[in-house]
Amino acid sequence: MAASMDNIRIVLVNTSHPGNIGGVARAMKNMGLSRLYLVKPKRFPAEDAVWRAASARELLDHAVVTETLDEALEGCGLIIGTSARERRIPWPLLDPRQCARQVQEESSQHPVALLFGREDRGLTNAELRKCHYHVHIPTSEDYSSLNLAAAVQVIAYELRMALIEQGSVDRGLVRDWDVEPASNMEMEYFYEHLEAVLMQIDFIDPVTPRQSMTRLRRLFNRVRMDRMELAMLRGVLTNVEKVCK
Amino acid sequence: MAASMDNIRIVLVNTSHPGNIGGVARAMKNMGLSRLYLVKPKRFPAEDAVWRAASARELLDHAVVTETLDEALEGCGLIIGTSARERRIPWPLLDPRQCARQVQEESSQHPVALLFGREDRGLTNAELRKCHYHVHIPTSEDYSSLNLAAAVQVIAYELRMALIEQGSVDRGLVRDWDVEPASNMEMEYFYEHLEAVLMQIDFIDPVTPRQSMTRLRRLFNRVRMDRMELAMLRGVLTNVEKVCK
Repeated sequence: MAASMDNIRIVLVNTSHPGNIGGVARAMKNMGLSRLYLVKPKRFPAEDAVWRAASARELLDHAVVTETLDEALEGCGLIIGTSARERRIPWPLLDPRQCARQVQEESSQHPVALLFGREDRGLTNAELRKCHYHVHIPTSEDYSSLNLAAAVQVIAYELRMALIEQGSVDRGLVRDWDVEPASNMEMEYFYEHLEAVLMQIDFIDPVTPRQSMTRLRRLFNRVRMDRMELAMLRGVLTNVEKVCK
Repeated sequence: MAASMDNIRIVLVNTSHPGNIGGVARAMKNMGLSRLYLVKPKRFPAEDAVWRAASARELLDHAVVTETLDEALEGCGLIIGTSARERRIPWPLLDPRQCARQVQEESSQHPVALLFGREDRGLTNAELRKCHYHVHIPTSEDYSSLNLAAAVQVIAYELRMALIEQGSVDRGLVRDWDVEPASNMEMEYFYEHLEAVLMQIDFIDPVTPRQSMTRLRRLFNRVRMDRMELAMLRGVLTNVEKVCK
């Protein structure tokens, strides 16, 4: 894990439901974050938090609980607060992807805090004014109130994607196929073989084979066969030829 | 809402905990999705589901419950299954962003299904083999097991971001500042005024003013002031001048 992830604090302000704190801990650990700050949680520690955290329990054990937001923000060079759509005074506003890039850039230099407000009414204006940026998670107009753990999940996911883009962690994708792709020449030999067999079985007319072969080429080119798959199909053709003899 | 969102089915296979079904419904509605399919849920309908769904209850009421996966997939032209990292037979694999672009492209043409497996062991190999693509949500190596609602949240968020990129829905950002930015000339008048005042108050030496003004320019250019902010600062300077007289 890149060192910069350790410089990122998730700060929950005045959370009401301990279950949400647990959900946040799990979302954080899933995405490689570990520093949880709790500003005056209503109820913590709590059983519900442990249950929802599942295997992220140690994040709860190491959570820093503070009386004030300023204590949680101490030493932070970049502070970003999650915000609902409408605010009277416009503030520099990021979407989660832009937020992740900003955090990614700065977290190698200094601690960064991401603030999440109360379940029912978010962050206060005074809390939002402490922020360098606000981040807004795009939502449907029909229902814009995200669950707290869901909001952290989206922001943390984008942080991980930014790390992957930057090349600090791997994508977790099986990027390489297990077998090499078939080469162009191998495909040409296959098409020759296929056409010959299709004529043998009277599927295509030797005088005007074009149209059918074009469609078959389009089909097999689209699937981007690997060598093993190609060998299988060649085997099928050979077997058909044997039947014809 | 773009019509294509109505063409996207979220299919939960064999879910154990109804609370997770509720969490999924909420995540879906937050991101503008509405079609929930439940393949043989262990317990549904259920109180826990309603509680976690919050204001997304109608998605539960309209959920389509089926006995088999094939029923839930009926009519779908694109099927994508969420998958953990390691699979014996590699399959075309997308990350959530690529997945969203693929869905975005195809959902205007035909129904699309996004499959999510059991809490404990995901989708079976047989279920995964029904898919055109697999999607893998990048996670930390330390803890790769996402909560079901969290997984849906990430995928649904990316679908919404793809819609925004395509311009079908707005970003939910206050994109326009409430006041016009200061023009270049206005800034130049400001710097002249500032320099004059700084000399008057002996902050800078009239013989070698350069260094300080350069730093001040860098500062004020970085904040990209709007006209109202600029007018405020001009007012401050004017007031300082009055004091000097």
